[in-house]
Amino acid sequence: MAEDDRDTRPDPHDDVMARVDEAIAAADPAALEAALEPMHAADIADLIERMTPAERRQFLELYADGIDGEILSEIDESIREEVLEQLPRAVLAEAVREMDSDDVVDLVEDLDAPERDEILAALDAGDRMAVQQSLAYPEYSAGRLMQSEVVTAPEHWTVAEAIDFIRSEDWLPEQFYHIVLVDPRRHPVGYVTLGRLLASRRDAPLRELAEDSFRTISAFAEEAEVAYVFNQYHLISAPVVDRDDRLVGVITIDDAMSVLDDEHEEDILRLAGVGDDSNISDSVLQTVRQRVPWLATNIVTALAAASVIAVFEGAIAQLVALAVLMPIVASMGGNAGTQTLTVAVRGLATRDLSRANALRVVRREVIVGLTNGVIFGIIMAAITWAWFRDPGLAAVIGSAMVINLLVAALAGILIPLGLNKLGADPALASGTFVTMMTDVIGFLAFLGLATLVLL
Amino acid sequence: MAEDDRDTRPDPHDDVMARVDEAIAAADPAALEAALEPMHAADIADLIERMTPAERRQFLELYADGIDGEILSEIDESIREEVLEQLPRAVLAEAVREMDSDDVVDLVEDLDAPERDEILAALDAGDRMAVQQSLAYPEYSAGRLMQSEVVTAPEHWTVAEAIDFIRSEDWLPEQFYHIVLVDPRRHPVGYVTLGRLLASRRDAPLRELAEDSFRTISAFAEEAEVAYVFNQYHLISAPVVDRDDRLVGVITIDDAMSVLDDEHEEDILRLAGVGDDSNISDSVLQTVRQRVPWLATNIVTALAAASVIAVFEGAIAQLVALAVLMPIVASMGGNAGTQTLTVAVRGLATRDLSRANALRVVRREVIVGLTNGVIFGIIMAAITWAWFRDPGLAAVIGSAMVINLLVAALAGILIPLGLNKLGADPALASGTFVTMMTDVIGFLAFLGLATLVLL
Repeated sequence: MAEDDRDTRPDPHDDVMARVDEAIAAADPAALEAALEPMHAADIADLIERMTPAERRQFLELYADGIDGEILSEIDESIREEVLEQLPRAVLAEAVREMDSDDVVDLVEDLDAPERDEILAALDAGDRMAVQQSLAYPEYSAGRLMQSEVVTAPEHWTVAEAIDFIRSEDWLPEQFYHIVLVDPRRHPVGYVTLGRLLASRRDAPLRELAEDSFRTISAFAEEAEVAYVFNQYHLISAPVVDRDDRLVGVITIDDAMSVLDDEHEEDILRLAGVGDDSNISDSVLQTVRQRVPWLATNIVTALAAASVIAVFEGAIAQLVALAVLMPIVASMGGNAGTQTLTVAVRGLATRDLSRANALRVVRREVIVGLTNGVIFGIIMAAITWAWFRDPGLAAVIGSAMVINLLVAALAGILIPLGLNKLGADPALASGTFVTMMTDVIGFLAFLGLATLVLL
Repeated sequence: MAEDDRDTRPDPHDDVMARVDEAIAAADPAALEAALEPMHAADIADLIERMTPAERRQFLELYADGIDGEILSEIDESIREEVLEQLPRAVLAEAVREMDSDDVVDLVEDLDAPERDEILAALDAGDRMAVQQSLAYPEYSAGRLMQSEVVTAPEHWTVAEAIDFIRSEDWLPEQFYHIVLVDPRRHPVGYVTLGRLLASRRDAPLRELAEDSFRTISAFAEEAEVAYVFNQYHLISAPVVDRDDRLVGVITIDDAMSVLDDEHEEDILRLAGVGDDSNISDSVLQTVRQRVPWLATNIVTALAAASVIAVFEGAIAQLVALAVLMPIVASMGGNAGTQTLTVAVRGLATRDLSRANALRVVRREVIVGLTNGVIFGIIMAAITWAWFRDPGLAAVIGSAMVINLLVAALAGILIPLGLNKLGADPALASGTFVTMMTDVIGFLAFLGLATLVLL
């Protein structure tokens, strides 16, 4: 893929950051405002995320009035509560009133009831109802992602009627790309892009302009499913329906893109055994708390592997070369297992791996595992023979390598498939299981064979 | 994050796959067409990707006429050449004529010149020029991603003029969401959403309706940069400009979303030491070829670690417990290093980690490494004491743990930062470097301290 030097350019934020730091140090709100004035809300939110909690406190004192709905909706969950607490109530109320209903939902869904109610109280009745309706859907569902502001038209309207309607409305959403056609019971039956609306004759019936790509999303669908559908079918927006197939809102692609990004983050962090919500701006304490459970799990699996070695203490005492070579077998197994595991987890996430081809993929991984086992078994046997001049030892390490790379392949594919079948996230904890298998079997195969053959 | 049971639902593709298999077995093109008729092009492309090469050949013989531009543009790069070769020339020419210029570029950019020219010959002159213009930009650049079909309007036009223009044009792109305002030298100066156009008075000047979010993208920008900008600023489409800031095309968010998805795939596969373009439908041979280089690298690093152990053969012969315990120190280091590394790689990709906060993040990781070192050093010392009743050995493993988790933290953050500074992808090969460090230092610290203290 691309040679990737995307981050070698100077980061324009670095300059601003320096000026922001100066303004904070000088406690000069005017300088701070001047430094931030040309910046996009998303970039200001990033600056705030990168600060330490102390810096953030100072910053918010100086810039409280500058925080608007846009910045607030861009701020990462991990520090949102901290920021909300420090904002004057009036600023918060004003900011919330500017936001689309989906952003308000995103903002308040993790808050405790009293804080949530305080924020909702700032909304006018209609917006508040929209937010509450959304909050009634499960966490991480399409219902939480959608905005309730939708432009609809009866399916029997013409282009002229739709255009006149849009002209006369004054509550239109900030961004919209389609008109959703609904039947009299408010079931969405199609949509028309604004481009096509503009380009068509005024007397054309909307029904005839509806797009093929039309599909609705259940408000109960998981957000991962939403991201998948948008990415797979190149949707720009999609109507959301309740259990009775009635229109309750719309999701736009920018929200789906954020979800896709979050899902990837989750996968990559889970595969590495780092807490899901780990963040570059977390404090030492937060970071330690996230990582300790995974290291603790690893120490248990490492002890399991160590107790396998302990069984063969006698063998090692007789032939110390075993101690020298045994980590190689385990390490190669761990690497091969991680390769298979990652391909499997990724395949499950993108749905390239499904029941239809699971068996074929398992078969492929087994053959690949055996092939790599034979390749690296021969290589290690040759190296061992050259190093220790012991053909028996060479044969043992070669065989152990074949066994362990086969085990790595099986564990790497079957563990994520199994977790997935059980309804668990295959990215979560698979890595630990797989390396435990390859460590234990690696030591067992090598030391066991050595005991049988050499001693 | 969400409990993730997105893949426990039955996959609707599995049914279709069964019917497709039947139709192929019966060599019945009508049945095949019937089975595929209700399917989206993207899903048909997925089916084709999941097949073995032999199945694919049979499938393409039966369904050649069904392959259209939409399916073709959805088919994964890894098998695209194989599919193109098997398609009758007439079908291919017809399919290419239906495609947007950006999809044609995507299709032909990896082909050899003769094949490429053959496909381009099927296009009419205007489309061919657009494709060739795009191909003149570097691989993985915005120029390759853009489509040249853009709806523009002079900046001094009114809403009425723009609407009349759109009504009278008959070459409008399939999907468009904005009208790009250009000055007389074709520099983009703003854009107006179709929603706002529709909702505004007919005599309103377009200039007054332009969106704040407007920003242009250089045709030479890398596609990773494009994905970042769309995701960061919630863009739906963005005009692309050449070196003279002249409008040359437009990129829409669905393409940016695909790039984001690809970039993530690349990161996750590189971190695991799997070839970038590894795919669930790859053959055994392709898979082995992708993975062998990484396993070969790993065997070299594992041998480095083994040669450290070899230095201490004498120590191990005297105290076999050292062989039992040494993998634990190395394994904990490897895990802690991977944690830090993943957070760093992810932070660089999302730009949460930059020069402005690199020092702070390094400091945090060092403190976290020391803290975890002390925590797990004490735990391992206690376990060792309980297991071997040897306070000296307990002290040695505790100290080695502190040292190795500190090294893991340093390697995990400094290696990706260094690679990034050198303009290399921090995800590529960092894992190997980091585990080599933690293995070598893990064995060295533990066995070295043991030699000094215990023997």
